[in-house]
Amino acid sequence: MSNPIEFYFDFSSPYAYLAVAEIDALAAKHHRNVAWKPMMLGIALKLTGNKPLVDVPMKGDYTRRDVPRTAKRLKLPFVWPEKFPYAAIAPSRAFYWLSARDETKGKLFARAVFTAYFGHGKNVDTPEAVAEVASHLGVPKDETLAALQDQAVKDRLKTETDAAIAKGVFGSPFFIVDGEPYWGQDRLADVARQLEGA
Amino acid sequence: MSNPIEFYFDFSSPYAYLAVAEIDALAAKHHRNVAWKPMMLGIALKLTGNKPLVDVPMKGDYTRRDVPRTAKRLKLPFVWPEKFPYAAIAPSRAFYWLSARDETKGKLFARAVFTAYFGHGKNVDTPEAVAEVASHLGVPKDETLAALQDQAVKDRLKTETDAAIAKGVFGSPFFIVDGEPYWGQDRLADVARQLEGA
Repeated sequence: MSNPIEFYFDFSSPYAYLAVAEIDALAAKHHRNVAWKPMMLGIALKLTGNKPLVDVPMKGDYTRRDVPRTAKRLKLPFVWPEKFPYAAIAPSRAFYWLSARDETKGKLFARAVFTAYFGHGKNVDTPEAVAEVASHLGVPKDETLAALQDQAVKDRLKTETDAAIAKGVFGSPFFIVDGEPYWGQDRLADVARQLEGA
Repeated sequence: MSNPIEFYFDFSSPYAYLAVAEIDALAAKHHRNVAWKPMMLGIALKLTGNKPLVDVPMKGDYTRRDVPRTAKRLKLPFVWPEKFPYAAIAPSRAFYWLSARDETKGKLFARAVFTAYFGHGKNVDTPEAVAEVASHLGVPKDETLAALQDQAVKDRLKTETDAAIAKGVFGSPFFIVDGEPYWGQDRLADVARQLEGA
């Protein structure tokens, strides 16, 4: 199997939620694995001087229209959560911790976080909420809560965020395929074209 | 024939140049006209607090890579002009003046401006350069130069830019299809999907 597709995202990004619906099927079709890499996008936005989408005049209005219509096209449940955007520290840390134990479970957890938040409008920003999501995958809540306090788990998210920024990741979702960068859910067609050519 | 597809752009936008390669064929396939609407994007950027793409850290590097590779895929000539971006006042004014006389000639002129600038790296920011481009379409240079001094022509560009902003246009290219807004050259696939459904 060739290089994995690097999939960078922030759990708070609605366009990442939309990308999640397509990325694994696309990768499987081309016999690639996907390396899911949640990060704290706010740190990259600080460096670039960009603001979260919905805080930008005009662009915010557009996004509020564009995301639901794209979700509809992809037949995904979608609601704007009341608390949006949010700092996705807890789910991101839990993801790396879970993935180190079991890669498949890590991805199932990430999907469950996205669906809870953007599909059903449930808050996923607290350790308790994250432990609740993980518990449905058979992970005891106290283990998740303990892991979220672990300094090594905290450091991992920081390391991953720094590494993403060092690779030039400034938005979410962001894909790197054999070194070639693609920014945006609407660039999955280009990712597919590259995979077809590879 | 149904409503025209509204095509908003700034002549200084490389993604608008890429969109130009596809928009007319797409519209023709669906029996729609395209209303080309150049505007001064800088005024919208000021309102949204956004900066020109290439001035944004990281995003600028990405754009410098993304535009040439997309041009290559579309089989379009492309060079980064030395003076980029530029204030496209002269070509925008000339476009509206020419289009009022002859819509087809206006579009041919717009294509010629894009190709001169992004295809061959020629400056198109001065009245003389714009008159030169128009002269190849049979428009005497002195007529173009005179038009560019005309207050009504100047006012027209201002009116069009204000109207675009009032419709929520904050980026280039930007399409409005039967009231539905699409931002970005990479959203032409969505424009196509809407036209197919219409």
